[in-house]
Amino acid sequence: MTDLHEHREASEQAEAMYRRVDAAKLEVLVAELFRRAGLPTSNAAFMGHCLVDADLRGVHSHGVRWAPTYVRGLRAGHINPQAEPKVVQDRGATAIVDGDRGVGHIAVKMAMDLAIQKAKEYGTATVSIRRNGHCGAMAYYTQQAADAGCIGFAATTGGTMIAPWGGLERRVGLNPISWAAPTGRGFSFNLDMAPSVVAGSKIEMAIARGEKIPLDWAFDAEGSPTDDPVLARREGTLAPIGGPKGVGLGIAADILCGVLSGGRYGPEQGERGGGQIVQAIDIAHFQPLEEFLARMDRMIDYLKSARVRPGAPGIFLPGELEAQRKREYRERGIPLDRPTREALRAAAAEAGVACEIELPD
Amino acid sequence: MTDLHEHREASEQAEAMYRRVDAAKLEVLVAELFRRAGLPTSNAAFMGHCLVDADLRGVHSHGVRWAPTYVRGLRAGHINPQAEPKVVQDRGATAIVDGDRGVGHIAVKMAMDLAIQKAKEYGTATVSIRRNGHCGAMAYYTQQAADAGCIGFAATTGGTMIAPWGGLERRVGLNPISWAAPTGRGFSFNLDMAPSVVAGSKIEMAIARGEKIPLDWAFDAEGSPTDDPVLARREGTLAPIGGPKGVGLGIAADILCGVLSGGRYGPEQGERGGGQIVQAIDIAHFQPLEEFLARMDRMIDYLKSARVRPGAPGIFLPGELEAQRKREYRERGIPLDRPTREALRAAAAEAGVACEIELPD
Repeated sequence: MTDLHEHREASEQAEAMYRRVDAAKLEVLVAELFRRAGLPTSNAAFMGHCLVDADLRGVHSHGVRWAPTYVRGLRAGHINPQAEPKVVQDRGATAIVDGDRGVGHIAVKMAMDLAIQKAKEYGTATVSIRRNGHCGAMAYYTQQAADAGCIGFAATTGGTMIAPWGGLERRVGLNPISWAAPTGRGFSFNLDMAPSVVAGSKIEMAIARGEKIPLDWAFDAEGSPTDDPVLARREGTLAPIGGPKGVGLGIAADILCGVLSGGRYGPEQGERGGGQIVQAIDIAHFQPLEEFLARMDRMIDYLKSARVRPGAPGIFLPGELEAQRKREYRERGIPLDRPTREALRAAAAEAGVACEIELPD
Repeated sequence: MTDLHEHREASEQAEAMYRRVDAAKLEVLVAELFRRAGLPTSNAAFMGHCLVDADLRGVHSHGVRWAPTYVRGLRAGHINPQAEPKVVQDRGATAIVDGDRGVGHIAVKMAMDLAIQKAKEYGTATVSIRRNGHCGAMAYYTQQAADAGCIGFAATTGGTMIAPWGGLERRVGLNPISWAAPTGRGFSFNLDMAPSVVAGSKIEMAIARGEKIPLDWAFDAEGSPTDDPVLARREGTLAPIGGPKGVGLGIAADILCGVLSGGRYGPEQGERGGGQIVQAIDIAHFQPLEEFLARMDRMIDYLKSARVRPGAPGIFLPGELEAQRKREYRERGIPLDRPTREALRAAAAEAGVACEIELPD
């Protein structure tokens, strides 16, 4: 934990060297990149909105830095630009959405919209997504539920980078799970976590920045701790949280997202393949929403009444700092690191998009 | 992790000094203890079955060692022996069960039965339990779902022993979450985990055995690691897995179990108070059960195809060793440690129950 904490502080210091980019302009640029790569205008606009949302929350690992990668996948045909996600089965409080091998975000957003609608009718709903691509931060979808007065749950299959307990090779996905619930305090509780000590994107960001990683993040091929992100990515495995517990969480998500959806799983699973699950619980089916919000706020007060650990900036709930950043970044611009700015600039040049926003070094 | 692993090995060595007790006789004894404490015969029989089930799976921390504690609570009036859990609200695919302040297991079993029934009708269901007591291992309830061809989820509020991230005092529950799913391999995937490095019961068992604990299990009142289980229990906090992730999982369960149920939460929450949530997803609403089982088995083969870490006994899924133990212990008897045997003997003597089963030292 100390290592992780120190690494965070180092990253925050590096942030001072970042450049602020206007959120609205960034959204327009990203949307245009997707439109030029073949997406219909409305889907392209949604992708701009969805990726910038992650950066606004400070979750740069799932933000606009992915746009050039998606665009390359769209041009190469790995991702279907004209994908039209469809509800292929609709039974009671459940449904299955087929992502049509498109950019994953579109089908998962649609699935959560359906889950919320069904939760309002039945009280709770489960929607499974298959034949879908990488879909970014799950917090986006659980936030949809929280904004609609529901408790949201979402999970996705991720890259297979965790070893089963007792094993040395990659077999379990870096599958994030997310829960969100509304509060009366200007932010939603929103937990979005991989079952590994760090998300895979953190390894990639360390590679892009040429940084070493803390020893408790990853193992080499023989199961020894390594500080080399390149080695970890090429042949190693990522460390699960809580040992067998993190492995178990990863397998649970593989079952919920990969096995249940009827999508691909494991050896059948390509780089971008896999599935998702979204669930919504309508709070009003259990108690008036106002009562729930008041109870949440009492819980928050209780959590924040603890003595603060010396040196800690305070007590914050999952989702709270993200909401604070969103307000700040919308006003002051989003701090983007150099590799992200360069990659966006290169993608814009390649697509012949006038890079209307300033992306200085 | 190394500490935890070494501790496990030490515990397994200690197990060689345990005494084997016949499971059927143990069930009869425990049921009789509950009957004498005022439970109706059918509920008493269920409690014998449910607690012995945990020991059969090797989860002694949630097994018969709790019987004397429950019996004291029943005699003292903290737990209502005549409790009649009721469905107080039934809307679509959701319901709320009131535990009537009884032994918690009875209401949660009833709630999962209802969730399964509703899942068969709607495809998925969420049932909330409030005014309920401690309910043992959540794996019991998710196993009900797996046995019925569902994916089960369950969580409960536990003792408040985790500090919020950035804080020093206990504010977040040791709330276990469990997911289970059937396979075709003679066991169900069954993950049942607290959001802390170890369950609270492990601390209590270390105290009972006079053992020290590994330094990564708990903190003292000032947030420093401690190896003293008594200190940890009296004024410390338990270490969450993955730092803020474990804290987040604990808060998510507090929301799902405590806030959503309309039960007590946090400062309102007594020692035995709290709520639970159970969810079931009917697999047949998504694909034929046979197909799901075949896909699960392919996943298991894939997981087990990884090279085994030198020194590890093999690759096992959550729930697999538990199922193996269940078969072995049913045949050869359940290994019970001395404190558990002594506590059961004392409880039997106090209740005037002839301790028909042999409990030698």
